[in-house]
Amino acid sequence: MPSIFDQDLPRTEANHAPLSPLSFIERTAEVYPDRLAVVHGSLRRKWAGVFSRCRRLASALERHGIGKGDTVAVMLPNTPPMVEAHFGIPVTGAVLNALNTRLDAETIAFMLDHGEAKVVIVDPEFAGTMKKALTLRKASTPLLVIDVEDAVYTGPVERIGSVTYEDFLAQGDAAYAWKLPADEWDAIALNYTSGTTGNPKGVVYHHRGAALNAVSNILEWDMPKHAVYLWTLPMFHCNGWCFPWTVAARAGVNVCLRRVEAQAIFDAIRQHGVTHYCGAPIVHGMLVNAPDAMKLGLPAGVKAMVAGAAPPASMIEGMEALGFDLTHVYGLTEVYGPATACAKQDGWETLEIGERARLNARQGVRYHLERDVRVLDPQTMQPVPMDGETMGEIMFKGNIAMKGYLKNPAATAEAFAGGWFHSGDLAVMYPDGYMKIKDRSKDIIISGGENISSIEVEDVLYRHPAVLAAAVVAKPDARWGETPCAFVELKAGAQTTAEDIVAHCKKHLAAFKVPRAVVFGELPKTSTGKIQKFELRKQAGSAAAIDS
Amino acid sequence: MPSIFDQDLPRTEANHAPLSPLSFIERTAEVYPDRLAVVHGSLRRKWAGVFSRCRRLASALERHGIGKGDTVAVMLPNTPPMVEAHFGIPVTGAVLNALNTRLDAETIAFMLDHGEAKVVIVDPEFAGTMKKALTLRKASTPLLVIDVEDAVYTGPVERIGSVTYEDFLAQGDAAYAWKLPADEWDAIALNYTSGTTGNPKGVVYHHRGAALNAVSNILEWDMPKHAVYLWTLPMFHCNGWCFPWTVAARAGVNVCLRRVEAQAIFDAIRQHGVTHYCGAPIVHGMLVNAPDAMKLGLPAGVKAMVAGAAPPASMIEGMEALGFDLTHVYGLTEVYGPATACAKQDGWETLEIGERARLNARQGVRYHLERDVRVLDPQTMQPVPMDGETMGEIMFKGNIAMKGYLKNPAATAEAFAGGWFHSGDLAVMYPDGYMKIKDRSKDIIISGGENISSIEVEDVLYRHPAVLAAAVVAKPDARWGETPCAFVELKAGAQTTAEDIVAHCKKHLAAFKVPRAVVFGELPKTSTGKIQKFELRKQAGSAAAIDS
Repeated sequence: MPSIFDQDLPRTEANHAPLSPLSFIERTAEVYPDRLAVVHGSLRRKWAGVFSRCRRLASALERHGIGKGDTVAVMLPNTPPMVEAHFGIPVTGAVLNALNTRLDAETIAFMLDHGEAKVVIVDPEFAGTMKKALTLRKASTPLLVIDVEDAVYTGPVERIGSVTYEDFLAQGDAAYAWKLPADEWDAIALNYTSGTTGNPKGVVYHHRGAALNAVSNILEWDMPKHAVYLWTLPMFHCNGWCFPWTVAARAGVNVCLRRVEAQAIFDAIRQHGVTHYCGAPIVHGMLVNAPDAMKLGLPAGVKAMVAGAAPPASMIEGMEALGFDLTHVYGLTEVYGPATACAKQDGWETLEIGERARLNARQGVRYHLERDVRVLDPQTMQPVPMDGETMGEIMFKGNIAMKGYLKNPAATAEAFAGGWFHSGDLAVMYPDGYMKIKDRSKDIIISGGENISSIEVEDVLYRHPAVLAAAVVAKPDARWGETPCAFVELKAGAQTTAEDIVAHCKKHLAAFKVPRAVVFGELPKTSTGKIQKFELRKQAGSAAAIDS
Repeated sequence: MPSIFDQDLPRTEANHAPLSPLSFIERTAEVYPDRLAVVHGSLRRKWAGVFSRCRRLASALERHGIGKGDTVAVMLPNTPPMVEAHFGIPVTGAVLNALNTRLDAETIAFMLDHGEAKVVIVDPEFAGTMKKALTLRKASTPLLVIDVEDAVYTGPVERIGSVTYEDFLAQGDAAYAWKLPADEWDAIALNYTSGTTGNPKGVVYHHRGAALNAVSNILEWDMPKHAVYLWTLPMFHCNGWCFPWTVAARAGVNVCLRRVEAQAIFDAIRQHGVTHYCGAPIVHGMLVNAPDAMKLGLPAGVKAMVAGAAPPASMIEGMEALGFDLTHVYGLTEVYGPATACAKQDGWETLEIGERARLNARQGVRYHLERDVRVLDPQTMQPVPMDGETMGEIMFKGNIAMKGYLKNPAATAEAFAGGWFHSGDLAVMYPDGYMKIKDRSKDIIISGGENISSIEVEDVLYRHPAVLAAAVVAKPDARWGETPCAFVELKAGAQTTAEDIVAHCKKHLAAFKVPRAVVFGELPKTSTGKIQKFELRKQAGSAAAIDS
């Protein structure tokens, strides 16, 4: 017999609605129609105008036959059509597949086939790649190709589609009836992982998770209404960590940016009063290391989020010198981008820089509306001791986790085994409840039976004044099994020697952790800027060992 | 055939968790264990301590046999046990029934019977009323009565229960395993409406709505982490509009307050650095009208929310003079308190005070995470024209709406007819999308076939310099059917005449709207501070008409 609180009290249309970021833009367009929504070159659009264009896009897509469960791919930089795609596509019931614009035609073709895209919207900069990808597709199903035109783009233009984006929008109805998904569990986006081995996996996002992560971004940053957000983070990367939806919820401003360059970023911050931006460490490093003349007249208190790697002390100091406020967040594509934050505590700001960097370099604690994040022993699924020493795997549980991998039930089941999403990142838990990543499972180096965290060695390398970037991988070794091999990219004009690097490491590391080989040169990076360790592993075998 | 996005991608424990404000305190206690959580007299408690007490409370309740679907009533002022009740009771699966402490024993007895309470936690100030209520109960089921002791309380003490609150907590386990409800649709709270006619109705809140309204509070106020919240609004009133959960989500400070008095409020603001508080107009009015000496040394920028009636110009000016920032919100018990906000627009702040008051007096726009709020014609269920003239009924749709009325399917069905919650408030919609209430359906006065908004007449009365409070109701009239009858409470020391009041009204109102009778005296108010128009209606019949 149900309790009195479960009798005659059902969900109805009046008291239950799907959670979806689609409601954010609808409210903002109604409440703040005349507020600035999008800046792109000399273009300015208000929220009423952007919403109207999203409705046209949706209407035109529906007239083309697009609806629930269809895939619409886009290959776009951080331009206004990319903002619109985050609303105008999913409102039809379709799924937004934002393609990584740095990928090659073969990989794009794989994604178009695997995701079963029916429409693709392409920026002129990527028309060449897309044209080739279209010839490489295996599927013979029709694919509508839409060419974006962009006044800010200055390169060569080749039309590869059957209609321009503006002409397509003109076919749509600006009075299109906005709606929410029938179910908040419906898919909103498809994001392919970079897939360092094998084919990329298609990570499916649901409306519920997208809405809750977008709100969590606000909560972590205390992000006020009408924040001015600069698009340094690619929107194809975990849907710009859900910030297109966050900015709509805040009735903020999307400052678009075709290309991530220090001068353009500083100009935008000064000109548009940018208050918030996100990026990988390389973005913040670029700003910190820019010539002083570029930095004149910056507003104080710009808030920055960094993800992808822990910010080293030099970056934290550099950001402080800029007057910027840096928050370190951590996540993966499968958890909508960041799902932990290194939440700052009272008193940290007065610690000396080394200690401050050590504390802020940690991956921290669960994101606001995520249910739980723990470091678990993957065998027993029990939490590791909070000793800062014992390694386990970071695991997530809650609404900010993907629906699963598209057409890959085995990988989905494996990722969610035991009721937790397995991140593959090995970490320790400190007594204050903050996690710190020690390594990816597959990046750990085992030398003479001892675990060596490649990240720990890299952290030391980054502290060498000549080092711009560093990566450490295992080098097969007849005696030790594996030894650490360092790959080092030097700062412009800097000079050093392998011996000097090794001497530096010996000062800061146990002897068995010191690299036995040092290779200088530019580091290979993935399309999202991650260092490709699998490429380095291939080279490590032949790297000359240092006689120590 | 389901789409590829609906195949093999089910909700699991890893990617789906119930939305509940119970997760807010768990995260805050983990991330900010040492931050101040509760201030009460000389008492200070940190979040780790408060969470530990909530776990003890839950554990003790479960050991007493309390679980899913049971009702635990509390009759408490804004003290620490009331904060704890919002977490320690629902985590067991039980439902928190916060009783209005201003009610009489008969009504309390009705609520204990109707809500089927199994436990009641009582503050010493209300032990007398509760003791009487216990004798008036019809139910013969066992009821555990728990006596709170409070060092801040200075009145007479009579124990009416079998255990003190602290002894009860001592029976519980501080290591109680915190958990979320099995389903976010589970009930979290039961709040009785004041019920001006007939028996009070029991409004049931669900976890989903409580979580989303608590977050909407943050979004409307741009409420930062660690905000310091002063408890001027009773927590028995729509669960303090969900702010116990909001403050936990923000790792903020609950500054408790047994009694709402200007001196105590100003002292708390200065002493504890209060940043936010809420209240009915009477609370803000009390502060505005307090002696200047009380107002010395106040911090600037304290944020205040006002609900229950539109703030008149004098209040807006008074709050500005205090340096406080006032937000006008509107709602009902059925929508968790406020579910609209009069969101401020650029440029309003430079308008002259009359226009600013006119704009801010409107009920505004939907709350952030509410799906929709409209002014609909209740016959056709179509939106009224946005002309500021045509009246319709305010209706709500979305997650910030009750589960329904307890044991009252007919009333629930009526309230949710047509897929909208019917507020019973009559309003117009302005061209900018802002609603303004004209009257409660039952308060409208029909005179010679013309509708007279009692609120419109009251607004004019409030602009008379001698008037502290005013209410207008229908007076039966042989010729006109009804005419407006004004009840007026004067400011301390102020003097005026009925003729002067009428003359004032004639300056600002169409002739047929001018009160035909004016009665001076203190206005009868409900336990939540609302003016009891039904009492005034009884008196209106015998009020002497003014010869005009």
